[in-house]
Amino acid sequence: MATSSLSTAEQARLTSGKNFWQTKSEGGLPSIAMTDGPNGLRKQEGSSDALGLSESVPATCFPPAVGLSQTWNPDLAARIGKAIGAEALARQVSVVLGPGINLKRSPLGGRNFEYYSEDPVLSAAFGEAWVRGVQSVDVGASLKHFAANNQETDRMRVSAAIDERTLHELYLRAFGHIVRTARPWTVMCSYNRINGVHASESRELLTDILRDTWGFDGVVVSDWGAVVDRVRSVAAGLDLMMPFGGDELDDDVAAAADDGRLDPQALQESADRMIALVERAAPHIRSENGTFDVDAHHALARETAAQAIVLLRNDDNLLPFDTSESLAVIGTMASQPRYQGGGSSKVNATKVDIPLDEIKSHAGSEVVYAAGYTTDDNDSQNRSDLISDAVAAARSATNVVLFLGLAEHQESEGFDRTTIDLPADQLELAEAVLAVNPRTAVVLSRGGVLRVAPLLAPAILDGALLGQAGGGAIADVLFGSVNPSGRLSETIPLRLEDNPSYLNFPGEFQHVTYGEGLFIGYRWYDARKMNLSYPFGHGLSYTDFDYRDLTVTETADGLAVELTVANVGRVDGREVVQVYSGIETSSVSRPVRELKAFASVDVKAGEEQRVTISVPRDVLAYWDVRVHDFVVEGATYRIDVGASSRDIRLHADVEVKGDEITIPLTTNSTIAEVVSVPSGKDALTDLVKSSFPDVTEADGPGLLAMIGSVPVDRLPEFTTGAVTKRALAEKLDAVNVDAGNSSDE
Amino acid sequence: MATSSLSTAEQARLTSGKNFWQTKSEGGLPSIAMTDGPNGLRKQEGSSDALGLSESVPATCFPPAVGLSQTWNPDLAARIGKAIGAEALARQVSVVLGPGINLKRSPLGGRNFEYYSEDPVLSAAFGEAWVRGVQSVDVGASLKHFAANNQETDRMRVSAAIDERTLHELYLRAFGHIVRTARPWTVMCSYNRINGVHASESRELLTDILRDTWGFDGVVVSDWGAVVDRVRSVAAGLDLMMPFGGDELDDDVAAAADDGRLDPQALQESADRMIALVERAAPHIRSENGTFDVDAHHALARETAAQAIVLLRNDDNLLPFDTSESLAVIGTMASQPRYQGGGSSKVNATKVDIPLDEIKSHAGSEVVYAAGYTTDDNDSQNRSDLISDAVAAARSATNVVLFLGLAEHQESEGFDRTTIDLPADQLELAEAVLAVNPRTAVVLSRGGVLRVAPLLAPAILDGALLGQAGGGAIADVLFGSVNPSGRLSETIPLRLEDNPSYLNFPGEFQHVTYGEGLFIGYRWYDARKMNLSYPFGHGLSYTDFDYRDLTVTETADGLAVELTVANVGRVDGREVVQVYSGIETSSVSRPVRELKAFASVDVKAGEEQRVTISVPRDVLAYWDVRVHDFVVEGATYRIDVGASSRDIRLHADVEVKGDEITIPLTTNSTIAEVVSVPSGKDALTDLVKSSFPDVTEADGPGLLAMIGSVPVDRLPEFTTGAVTKRALAEKLDAVNVDAGNSSDE
Repeated sequence: MATSSLSTAEQARLTSGKNFWQTKSEGGLPSIAMTDGPNGLRKQEGSSDALGLSESVPATCFPPAVGLSQTWNPDLAARIGKAIGAEALARQVSVVLGPGINLKRSPLGGRNFEYYSEDPVLSAAFGEAWVRGVQSVDVGASLKHFAANNQETDRMRVSAAIDERTLHELYLRAFGHIVRTARPWTVMCSYNRINGVHASESRELLTDILRDTWGFDGVVVSDWGAVVDRVRSVAAGLDLMMPFGGDELDDDVAAAADDGRLDPQALQESADRMIALVERAAPHIRSENGTFDVDAHHALARETAAQAIVLLRNDDNLLPFDTSESLAVIGTMASQPRYQGGGSSKVNATKVDIPLDEIKSHAGSEVVYAAGYTTDDNDSQNRSDLISDAVAAARSATNVVLFLGLAEHQESEGFDRTTIDLPADQLELAEAVLAVNPRTAVVLSRGGVLRVAPLLAPAILDGALLGQAGGGAIADVLFGSVNPSGRLSETIPLRLEDNPSYLNFPGEFQHVTYGEGLFIGYRWYDARKMNLSYPFGHGLSYTDFDYRDLTVTETADGLAVELTVANVGRVDGREVVQVYSGIETSSVSRPVRELKAFASVDVKAGEEQRVTISVPRDVLAYWDVRVHDFVVEGATYRIDVGASSRDIRLHADVEVKGDEITIPLTTNSTIAEVVSVPSGKDALTDLVKSSFPDVTEADGPGLLAMIGSVPVDRLPEFTTGAVTKRALAEKLDAVNVDAGNSSDE
Repeated sequence: MATSSLSTAEQARLTSGKNFWQTKSEGGLPSIAMTDGPNGLRKQEGSSDALGLSESVPATCFPPAVGLSQTWNPDLAARIGKAIGAEALARQVSVVLGPGINLKRSPLGGRNFEYYSEDPVLSAAFGEAWVRGVQSVDVGASLKHFAANNQETDRMRVSAAIDERTLHELYLRAFGHIVRTARPWTVMCSYNRINGVHASESRELLTDILRDTWGFDGVVVSDWGAVVDRVRSVAAGLDLMMPFGGDELDDDVAAAADDGRLDPQALQESADRMIALVERAAPHIRSENGTFDVDAHHALARETAAQAIVLLRNDDNLLPFDTSESLAVIGTMASQPRYQGGGSSKVNATKVDIPLDEIKSHAGSEVVYAAGYTTDDNDSQNRSDLISDAVAAARSATNVVLFLGLAEHQESEGFDRTTIDLPADQLELAEAVLAVNPRTAVVLSRGGVLRVAPLLAPAILDGALLGQAGGGAIADVLFGSVNPSGRLSETIPLRLEDNPSYLNFPGEFQHVTYGEGLFIGYRWYDARKMNLSYPFGHGLSYTDFDYRDLTVTETADGLAVELTVANVGRVDGREVVQVYSGIETSSVSRPVRELKAFASVDVKAGEEQRVTISVPRDVLAYWDVRVHDFVVEGATYRIDVGASSRDIRLHADVEVKGDEITIPLTTNSTIAEVVSVPSGKDALTDLVKSSFPDVTEADGPGLLAMIGSVPVDRLPEFTTGAVTKRALAEKLDAVNVDAGNSSDE
């Protein structure tokens, strides 16, 4: 079908939903369905609820992005994506609204659990894999939330003030990568504004960057309720407003196309893209619900959860526990696990593994349980009773597993946190338990980063959110049937006050300034040489790995990094090898080191492996505001290979040939810039001499520091008019021609 | 004279200089002269040198702003202003180019020595006093550099990206205060751009804010070379381009006024203001040079220097030294003092007191001297010889005074520093000297903040830059004939990496982002709870002061703060009492505490004084971006009174009645904002219920957190069109009328 067969009014109707979850069946085109979300299907039947308030049909709840990303294993994301795609097809759903790849700018972000990382390379790898997985079974993904949707506070109005380089180099980077590599069927524009312009109305974002630069050919769908002005959105390149907002809005678009307020071609193109999407999706939808392999998907969820658990600390190898020793399990979250986030991504799980049950089934000895605390703020149960019961349990056992974390009402889509502290009663409990039994391993469940500095337990497992099968995975790790291998995808700072956006998050009066610029997450802590609780990329194992024999060579496509990883411990394990780069003396501001690539490597005890990791050349590039493009700087790159951003095991220097860029001299160029070109120096020498007659050659360097920053167009003032602007411009043109610079500017 | 008698061409000529330092004598109007600078007159004869490269006629070199501000005694600034005014008249100068009141955004700022503080209240007090002083003798001041000229790097092109609130609340605040209170004859626009617009071309800055809001009626003069496009500058409200840049530029302005590119009235107004300035200034200029009291001015410079010295540290009361004990004076800067900054403010001093000589004349016992280091980078003198001589000297004496600091070539107008470290050889020297004689007092000379963390001396005097009479003042303090009373006007951080603008100073490619926003200086360190070397406002004394009996009352004009300060030590002294305020739970982002007022109080040993300090109401205001104006928030203000920003001695809470502001509800208002108005809640209840039919009253608080941030104009989408935008707008209009809100918006 083509839009030529549709009237303007039909085209307009096609570019907004039929209801909350479906497209319109306009002009004979079938309707297709969309649903949340990234860690499992949330299909609602008989309710129009974008906020996750009502229950949806059962689906596998995979580990949310916060957990998934801790695997540092995008293959799992691809397999999960494929499984979710299968569940979507079984439920007659054509587009799944994910993945969410926004960066975790602040640890307080309410939706951080839905996002992968503070780093764009890690986020891009997971997002790419997830999209490929879903789309491999002919279900569309929706890459979201495009863009700079990094907070919940006032999310529908807030304007993110972001400088050009930071926007491209951090916040758009993963989007660009995934659009180019995985070609998602749809991209979802975000609620917020960027530098004053709503994402849903930004032609720069939705057309210039997304389509013209990255080559996106799919549908841009609005986040649910993100459209403010439907006509402006269509003009910007938004193809589908969701949900349906009434006929008057469609009518207005049609009228605008007719009366010249809107270029009819923009509407026609959007309608064409809608038709293409539906025609691509609809053939794969059966007329009745299908089935999927519930057990296999649960097993995948468990496999993923096991790789997602990060062993933050393990003093004196407290873990794994011996199954023959008695154990106290403490904490409500052992029996009522916190395994996913709240809001639109909340899944009605097919079944949920209870950690306490899984632990009991592993343990060969007695397991006692105490709740320790309640997560219900309105619960009046006596705190001291809870704690004393827990202390008694801890005292009675050889080992303790203490489940701590945040309840769903303490963090969710829709609002941001104001603290990263564990609830006070849990900290009190931890102190009391540790006082009577120091053989305590803490298991954390949380969507956003928690402050762990006050937790003095000798062993800490960060479970983040592990999905419906997390309970079994936790038991596996506690007793060593799985060797932990997860890695932090977000830095754990010592204090909330240390974090880069602490003083400008979440902003106020509809404005937030991304004042930390390029320096989010570990980029900030490293550049400011700050102490941390645990660095980005950190995670311990029950075995040890040696790194050696690093070689780094420049290839046509980037860098080839090779090294040997040896498992020198006594159990098999998985190591996540991380490749960072930095430039000692860069011509631009840069983080000390940035993640460029990584590899997940399984190595059996006593064995070793030669690992090859490619660093694509485009990942080396910074965004240059002079040419408004990514540029690879020609320089000596220091390649740091390690087990975390602060555990660098090997490094090598490699010369990288830079991209050539041309910056013509203009009258706005400074004296220093002009004299840096040989012919420019000759041209200026006379002028400068007439301007500062007392100056001799010996004054050179000091003088250049002093006057080097004067733009040459000010020379008339510094020569009381002896030099004219016209004469200057002519000289510079000649210099540009001589130097082979174009002078289009 | 009026412009009516001048042709357009004559008007145009009148609005640029005759040469480097004088205005044109157009149409019979006499020419007047201007010169640098804020810490003494820098009148050049026979040379056109804005960069301070050539020597000027002798003048008193008072302590530069970095030193002056450490007195926390604006009366001294007024007296110095008056003295400089007298020297100006003696030299036939009508306008002195000062004071410089830009804030010290970064410790690296090359021109920080010319500025007062990181705090706008302190800066405003000094600037106001200085202007009043100069203008009391009918010489004009030039308030500079307007505005946001906080770095030297690329200063003629760099665009400072500053959010509206930060610009007004920090960077413009002292300008506004001084324009309103001291009415400077001229204001000098800065080189840089602000949010993309050159200060010299910003009508918002030079006309809307400066004249229309603050009531400025004087002349806006360009910084020397700050004009890029003369026509745009005149249109913006720039009255005088300096220096002369050739007839073609004047001709272009006249042509523009004739051909419509420039409003002729703008030119006429500028010419009128030039005439008014000249007619105000010229009658006070005699036809021949006059004289001034060189000795009295030197004495004033010494009095000021003595109050400017900050006793940072004085373990075990090492200082004052007993004149009967033998002394080693170490450090080149004892014999070749660093007492002023480099660049356009550099004064050819009438005489210079040499610290070594002054110390010798005080000391009753032997004084040995060793250079210790050289400040000449090209000097090949052996570093180890210098140090071993110094060590021998230190070993031979009972006490040591070690002069350390930065040489003029290490910091100056024209470039920013890249480190706050002392030179490595000086640190090495300090360590060696302290190893042999721990009774060492360090005296620092420096324009910008120095890192003092590695200096383990038990006593440290921060001399900053003390002007030509600093040598005597240092000796006075070392031996106790003056009790030190200076206070830091800038925080000394532990490390450069700690400072707020560390990662975005000085920017690159002509852009710098003020990412730290409101949180510069102590505002940052306090909000992030960071450790420091020495806090803002810090300074020790040879006596002790007790604070007691604080009362704070609201008055019509602000707050009246009263307390008793008692000198409980054994020597007379001066105490600087600092009044800060904060709001525990403010409706806007705020620093923990901010300086609001201060008082310099002399109290004799054993006596006490009741001190009254007024906090003007306008100082309590924050800039509200919703109404684009300063607003006093109604709240409980915590008033902290103390001896530094981290040495709060007393505090009191006071209720302050807020300014009333009206923010009408619009369709962009959120559900939470609408329901916060009683009639709005009624109006929305039905709509919300129809939108979320499953919701009950019990879901209230959680639900509001979830959907409260939805702007009401999105209700059509959340009600699948049941609510229309038109119906919503009508309801809100009714609510606004009901609530007494205007709805002009």
